[in-house]
Amino acid sequence: MKRIRYSVAMSLDGFIAGPAGESDWIVSDPDIDFDALLAEFDTVVMGRKTFEEAWIGGDTMPGMRVIVVSRTLKDEDYPDVTVVGAGMEGTLRELRRGEGKDIWLFGGGSLFRSLLELGLVDTVEVAVIPVLLGDGRPMLEHPTDQAQLRLAGTRLYEKSGIMALHYDVEEP
Amino acid sequence: MKRIRYSVAMSLDGFIAGPAGESDWIVSDPDIDFDALLAEFDTVVMGRKTFEEAWIGGDTMPGMRVIVVSRTLKDEDYPDVTVVGAGMEGTLRELRRGEGKDIWLFGGGSLFRSLLELGLVDTVEVAVIPVLLGDGRPMLEHPTDQAQLRLAGTRLYEKSGIMALHYDVEEP
Repeated sequence: MKRIRYSVAMSLDGFIAGPAGESDWIVSDPDIDFDALLAEFDTVVMGRKTFEEAWIGGDTMPGMRVIVVSRTLKDEDYPDVTVVGAGMEGTLRELRRGEGKDIWLFGGGSLFRSLLELGLVDTVEVAVIPVLLGDGRPMLEHPTDQAQLRLAGTRLYEKSGIMALHYDVEEP
Repeated sequence: MKRIRYSVAMSLDGFIAGPAGESDWIVSDPDIDFDALLAEFDTVVMGRKTFEEAWIGGDTMPGMRVIVVSRTLKDEDYPDVTVVGAGMEGTLRELRRGEGKDIWLFGGGSLFRSLLELGLVDTVEVAVIPVLLGDGRPMLEHPTDQAQLRLAGTRLYEKSGIMALHYDVEEP
């Protein structure tokens, strides 16, 4: 079974983007092997806002299937991606049952909430950036139900002070 | 110089209490030496809400000076604590210049914002509890300005999965 993994950079105060979607506060670290991370996935899923703000115009990821969850975008307008609306849950459950690499839940906090409520998130993997953002888009849109996690791994990136924390989402 | 240290337990999604002040989600860990932590402080400062919800009726801390920041509480009603209102900044600056142990900023997120904006917070020390709370009181009331941190230390509590992250607040 493929896992759906919410992997994001987060400020210590729990934001994954500034109020207008800013990502300039996300420092880099030469020891983060982004290619190795990417190689663990064959599918990336994101919400409409994340798609429009963080994805369009960015680097494409060859060989990666891109799924955008939106009730307003039209699938035919975006030939390189799959737009799913009301059928989102069925599509993701089917994908998750399939063979292959994992599915990257790229963001944002609103889609994370929806998938968490559906029991469709397997792991939460945050790279805690050493900054207090003070405002922005929350990593998890609230309110929603409490969810228990199990710490599965940590890694400190000493050059930048980024702390990677990996959790498994416990069954309710 | 004494340091003002914001030391709190936080959910991964950035809350320090539930919507009604709940703290039942804060798991314990036998390896956390609370007495050793307490021994690093001789003063604790907190906001009115934290005082009323989390402090009154709880264990007292012998030898600890307690300062409550509030514009509405009357100092004479609480003989065991010092209530400061408009004079908060002067009181804390003077205290901080003094000799002795550190000052524990006990919470909550609103007082943290005020003191951060005044440049009066030296460290941010969070114990990340392995839970997504889904709603509650933010560790830092927003909106406020961005603040850079420097990771100063980490400790993993393996029995509970609590991750302690200690940061110094960088000068703006």
